[in-house]
Amino acid sequence: MPLDPTTSDFRTLWDELAPVGRDRRTGGYARFAWTREDATLREWFVGAARARGLDVEVDRNGNLWAWWGAPGDDAVVTGSHLDSVPGGGAYDGPLGVVSALLAVDRLRAQGVVPERPFAVVAFADEEGARFGVACMGSRLLSGAIGRDRALALRDDAGVTLAEALSAAGVDPAHAGRDEEALRRIGVFVELHVEQGRGLVDLDAPVGVASSIWPHGRWHHRFEGEGNHAGTTLIADRHDPMLPFADLVLGGREAAAELGAVLTVGRVLVGPNGTNAIPVTVDAWIDARAPEEATVRALVERVERLSRDAAGRRGVSVEVSEESWSGLVSFDAALRDRLAGAVAGLAPIGAVPVLGTGAGHDAGVLAAYVPTAMVFVRNPTGVSHSPAEHAEEADCVTGVHALASALEDLLTGE
Amino acid sequence: MPLDPTTSDFRTLWDELAPVGRDRRTGGYARFAWTREDATLREWFVGAARARGLDVEVDRNGNLWAWWGAPGDDAVVTGSHLDSVPGGGAYDGPLGVVSALLAVDRLRAQGVVPERPFAVVAFADEEGARFGVACMGSRLLSGAIGRDRALALRDDAGVTLAEALSAAGVDPAHAGRDEEALRRIGVFVELHVEQGRGLVDLDAPVGVASSIWPHGRWHHRFEGEGNHAGTTLIADRHDPMLPFADLVLGGREAAAELGAVLTVGRVLVGPNGTNAIPVTVDAWIDARAPEEATVRALVERVERLSRDAAGRRGVSVEVSEESWSGLVSFDAALRDRLAGAVAGLAPIGAVPVLGTGAGHDAGVLAAYVPTAMVFVRNPTGVSHSPAEHAEEADCVTGVHALASALEDLLTGE
Repeated sequence: MPLDPTTSDFRTLWDELAPVGRDRRTGGYARFAWTREDATLREWFVGAARARGLDVEVDRNGNLWAWWGAPGDDAVVTGSHLDSVPGGGAYDGPLGVVSALLAVDRLRAQGVVPERPFAVVAFADEEGARFGVACMGSRLLSGAIGRDRALALRDDAGVTLAEALSAAGVDPAHAGRDEEALRRIGVFVELHVEQGRGLVDLDAPVGVASSIWPHGRWHHRFEGEGNHAGTTLIADRHDPMLPFADLVLGGREAAAELGAVLTVGRVLVGPNGTNAIPVTVDAWIDARAPEEATVRALVERVERLSRDAAGRRGVSVEVSEESWSGLVSFDAALRDRLAGAVAGLAPIGAVPVLGTGAGHDAGVLAAYVPTAMVFVRNPTGVSHSPAEHAEEADCVTGVHALASALEDLLTGE
Repeated sequence: MPLDPTTSDFRTLWDELAPVGRDRRTGGYARFAWTREDATLREWFVGAARARGLDVEVDRNGNLWAWWGAPGDDAVVTGSHLDSVPGGGAYDGPLGVVSALLAVDRLRAQGVVPERPFAVVAFADEEGARFGVACMGSRLLSGAIGRDRALALRDDAGVTLAEALSAAGVDPAHAGRDEEALRRIGVFVELHVEQGRGLVDLDAPVGVASSIWPHGRWHHRFEGEGNHAGTTLIADRHDPMLPFADLVLGGREAAAELGAVLTVGRVLVGPNGTNAIPVTVDAWIDARAPEEATVRALVERVERLSRDAAGRRGVSVEVSEESWSGLVSFDAALRDRLAGAVAGLAPIGAVPVLGTGAGHDAGVLAAYVPTAMVFVRNPTGVSHSPAEHAEEADCVTGVHALASALEDLLTGE
């Protein structure tokens, strides 16, 4: 066990995770909730926590908790998640979990004795890559998503979340809002790789979060009429690919005009044959902006655009909201306390405060308990891609910053 | 064995095929080359042929031949294929094979004794749904596609055609132009469900083919930069979904202007995550028109459109031709002979002569041997969809027409 984590200690723990779910060709990760890869990551967490003398519990929604000492209410909690988007990077999620475990080592090395219950958490299914709703573990725990709606969600193979939980040994009958687990979280601090170039531009290795942009996901399902690609005249077609293309271009234009961002990253075409006019095009819209009103205006405009385009093309469309997260302003007192605890450390100096367009479990929990986030510099600014990166030295600085913040919370008033 | 096929005889044989590869929810078929479903269909063919006393051979490219009497050069050959597009109908392909077997029954019942070698054929991999190139069995046999290029094609899971053939017991070392098999085909007649409303409009149960429009498939691969959907500013994006949408809309417009048809039926997005800007969009274009010059003009315009759009969006694009089939004019003498042999039958009367936008093995082989096609009326006009249909009475009329044509070829001069 390292006494005071160095880059080499970081690398040792980090390298244990590196091969899990990695595509050797692209370097991207596929670590989806409740899959074999996810199970491997969860086993790794249990092992790494036990090696540190922490007691591991699984809560009713499949989140993993590693307790230093007895579990109890009003605990200091830190951690993040282990799953990834398709083709994702190594850092989004795992950096927060690895840093939390190394922060425990550092606190121990410094002789810190927690005066409050303390846990490292690995939230389940943060990315929503498989069932479409992000932050599922924290949403279920807090009740931010209804149990029945969540359990009925299906992956692309038609497997429900209830079935996936069952198969992974989590009884879906007990899923849903978990008063005990929620009561135990006194404060939650999530360390995360930055998903933009804010810290690069400020030349700072770490920062703390001010807010998360409001954001959500909307599903547009276009349904037309399948037919032969060679024998069906242009005028006789009801081709759902056309209003889908209208949506992509119109959505981009609307987002640019409104100062928002809109992404069409996931598309499924049925039956997806070269010589057949499609029957269906399912598209998922991700929309975000600094203000809720902007996102709502964008989403309404895009829905109208889809309906108009579908009408013009003789195609039907159904639009549904899959998830919505309002503006999150992190607890200002906690943020300042964190920044204060971290500011003294070399080579950090002053601690930048940054907003972000990315959703996090800390954002979901912010509606229930004081939460805060520590960001670690990402030299590429790229995330959800194999190009996502953080330098080892910055990761170690992140561990030191997190440990200082936790020490303050565990032993201060 | 039915002596003279009735609707009930047709139904009996037809129903044996109905469940294979059928999606119970949509009614569409997934019968892709060299899969389990394909193997089941091939076994069915062998059994049905042997039950009729036909001798079954597999040629070097995996096509199935059922010989009535000794195999030999200059044979009369009839048949079609058993595979489907994704979500395809029941008739495209299997109707020609089932009708060929029932025509054998009818010829026997009428005491016809072939004066030339005669075979029923089931060509492999006509739709190209798995490896991207249509009519693979007849293209390999005739040398219309190079052996090395064909064997290196990959399906979406990365399996090569060579590997798929091997796994199905067809040695890829012997694949490629098959002089003996080609020499044996004296004339090829393919019965097929019509893939449009020509016969419906003419109120005719069957017709014969005049020509197949020139057509081909082109692959456009857009590659941009994957990144986070929330934290990447609109101006910083290199999103391949945008030039793809430009291609869909611009391609449609160009096709309409040129009097051609263009379809974007198959799209694969990588990594296909809701909260990630895509890295790649792979799109396949199917383009057809009555004249070769029109298709070429359309394809050039669409390629320019893709390159311009990609350039504007900061994305790269690669365009490649996956297949090309020039205009096929079926053998006029054979067509007239067929029409003459069929014209007497009730309830056929005069036999319409129709062009089609759909490709067929008969179209590939037309460059090497005299070929002809018989079409059976499709009341929906729809094809490559579960709505594809033919009435049983029309199917039986088709069998009678095919048998008359074959009798003429087998016994006349």
